[in-house]
Amino acid sequence: MNTNNLPHIVIIGAGFAGLETARGLSNAPVRITLIDKHNHHLFQPLLYQVAIAGLLPSQIAYPIRTIFRRQKNLNFQMGEVGAINFDEKYIKLNGSVIAYDYLVIAVGGRTNFFGFDSIEKNGFQLKDLETAVKTRNHLLSMFEQASHEGDAEKRKSLLTFVIVGGGPTGVETAGALGELISHVMVKDFPQLDVNETRVILLEAAANLIGPYPDELRKATAKLLRRKNVDIRLNTKMENYNGQHVTLGDGSQIETHTLIWTAGVKSTEMVDALGVEQAGGGRVRVEPTLQLPGRSEAFVIGDAAFLAENGLPLPMLSTVAIQQGKSAAQNILRMINGKPLMPFHYKDPGLLATIGRNAAVARIWGISFSGFIAWLIWVFLHIYRIIGFRNRIVVMFNWIWDYFFYDNQVRLITKE
Amino acid sequence: MNTNNLPHIVIIGAGFAGLETARGLSNAPVRITLIDKHNHHLFQPLLYQVAIAGLLPSQIAYPIRTIFRRQKNLNFQMGEVGAINFDEKYIKLNGSVIAYDYLVIAVGGRTNFFGFDSIEKNGFQLKDLETAVKTRNHLLSMFEQASHEGDAEKRKSLLTFVIVGGGPTGVETAGALGELISHVMVKDFPQLDVNETRVILLEAAANLIGPYPDELRKATAKLLRRKNVDIRLNTKMENYNGQHVTLGDGSQIETHTLIWTAGVKSTEMVDALGVEQAGGGRVRVEPTLQLPGRSEAFVIGDAAFLAENGLPLPMLSTVAIQQGKSAAQNILRMINGKPLMPFHYKDPGLLATIGRNAAVARIWGISFSGFIAWLIWVFLHIYRIIGFRNRIVVMFNWIWDYFFYDNQVRLITKE
Repeated sequence: MNTNNLPHIVIIGAGFAGLETARGLSNAPVRITLIDKHNHHLFQPLLYQVAIAGLLPSQIAYPIRTIFRRQKNLNFQMGEVGAINFDEKYIKLNGSVIAYDYLVIAVGGRTNFFGFDSIEKNGFQLKDLETAVKTRNHLLSMFEQASHEGDAEKRKSLLTFVIVGGGPTGVETAGALGELISHVMVKDFPQLDVNETRVILLEAAANLIGPYPDELRKATAKLLRRKNVDIRLNTKMENYNGQHVTLGDGSQIETHTLIWTAGVKSTEMVDALGVEQAGGGRVRVEPTLQLPGRSEAFVIGDAAFLAENGLPLPMLSTVAIQQGKSAAQNILRMINGKPLMPFHYKDPGLLATIGRNAAVARIWGISFSGFIAWLIWVFLHIYRIIGFRNRIVVMFNWIWDYFFYDNQVRLITKE
Repeated sequence: MNTNNLPHIVIIGAGFAGLETARGLSNAPVRITLIDKHNHHLFQPLLYQVAIAGLLPSQIAYPIRTIFRRQKNLNFQMGEVGAINFDEKYIKLNGSVIAYDYLVIAVGGRTNFFGFDSIEKNGFQLKDLETAVKTRNHLLSMFEQASHEGDAEKRKSLLTFVIVGGGPTGVETAGALGELISHVMVKDFPQLDVNETRVILLEAAANLIGPYPDELRKATAKLLRRKNVDIRLNTKMENYNGQHVTLGDGSQIETHTLIWTAGVKSTEMVDALGVEQAGGGRVRVEPTLQLPGRSEAFVIGDAAFLAENGLPLPMLSTVAIQQGKSAAQNILRMINGKPLMPFHYKDPGLLATIGRNAAVARIWGISFSGFIAWLIWVFLHIYRIIGFRNRIVVMFNWIWDYFFYDNQVRLITKE
């Protein structure tokens, strides 16, 4: 069969959204070119675990070519898309021109520092494997430096860790870091005085995990405090120079570590498209996920802005996955000359861990916290990780950690 | 008990030699300071597996603090030793001065390019996790680039991999790379034509694995050829500019990948000591492993030069481990006023894998090759890897690879 006459679908980005679109077209009579600047798909909800040395990069990343080995209608290309020509329907990649019939833009986002250049320069972020490994190396190095620091004030600032943002990522990072210190670092550093360490979670609003019911917010704060996390609500940041954080009230926190989890915005590629952008630079899309005026181009996942019931959809993996499926179905409808369907988000609820054997969850309208929520979290995350081998290895890790209170190896690698 | 009056032993380097010395003193009434520039011990014999994406960095590296958690007489310090003052018996580290009663220098070696600056600049080496990961990222990127290269000549040069050095590391790397291509890359890259790929092993001498019996050399060459490795003996290199290798006879091989495994020499720290150095810059030591004229300083492992029966001891982990034990015992003898014992190497034989389920071995004077040798290799290596958890995970990997012909995840990470 000559497959060159089949419709050509180009998908940019192999995150949750792009992956789901590609899978949704696996049995369709189409040619797919999937493009990503990395050769691996990343299970981003567990990226904070890499930063606190709880999981290894390889356990949450999986080579894209291996994922699609059996999908014969798909061709993967590693590279960065240089430009998109919507009028003539082609993209530029690795010095070549690739024409498309349908285009899916699923390029995700990048960290939004809201113009705080000093934080972008001096702080840490959790965006991809590189930034997570950099954070891990830095965290571990702080303990090494503190171990031979004689000056108590300097030691205290080395052992103060500030996390900004009280959303799921900030909450999970703070809880896991608190636990790493009290269960693991005290064993690796016998001279370490836990009272000299501090994990501080800053949130500008009056509550952690804002959009969720009050009983879950309270359970989250309680579980975090049990892990020795110092929660500071209604606290705005002014500046961070790598030595100390300056807060809105003018007070300062001496620290060499600030992890910023407080925002996501559009990528440079999206900013260069010349299309209408909404809050955070996300591309405004039709309810069908099409780019306005470009019916053959879809934008999905963190790159897309769509409001439902007057509220913008959150930048979450669950939204991205559902939009990926929806885009695949709408492309098939277009190919078959059928009317397109608007996207509707089904909220599966909240799920966040706060260290070993504690989590908060809201599923099917029911709130859980503590050990049961943690079991749900472990089960769902292992189930969603790609690759049977990775599932086994990550499950082995978590069982091991559960019984031995010992995280995965804590390597400091050069960058 | 006031432990400050106990003899203070400073060990520089936590490779095989330094680790063994520290362990040999675990029950002794001494204070030990173990120093390394990394926070982890590296199982160097398996470093080539990281380079060919067969094992993950974390599976062959283990945090030093975790290894010595239970050894209460040991204190670990991460850092690079700035200077050693043998007259006043102190070292400089992280801006502090550390006095010693006994000093053990176990700093290993670095890659010897024998003055070929062009190879050092354009080639790859397998010295530590960073260089191995860099090699892996490059190897995988060559396949990605070749996948969208239309020019057949250019594609061939992207898919040509030259390994220099026919010792165990070169042989193991070439065999594992040949197997990676024929069993794994062909699946990840369905368009890849295996006939366009080449793995070339260059050796200046007339034989691979020089010092071993002829039947083993022949078995090695046979197993490598079965993995499609192009073995070129009596072949000297003249130059490598990142585009092509120039050989001694003036001919050229077009390639973007040259992995240099042909030599080890002393580190910069050893070169700066101002002591007598032998071949490769190694420090000449007494048969007791002491530095001549400095009875309280020992040099062991790859950093030390000692001849036995007229032949210099090889730079192998087996020598390093035995010397580490010997140095610990001689230090205890000195503390107890007993005469020191000279070091004698017990050769445990050769062991090298040539890809999945094939290896060559010489143990207790008997030569093995093929599957039995591979089983011995797997058993001995898993046994020697540090950490029960790592052993389980590596064993799981190898069993998985054995049945599914699929290596560990092939991530390209930014450096």
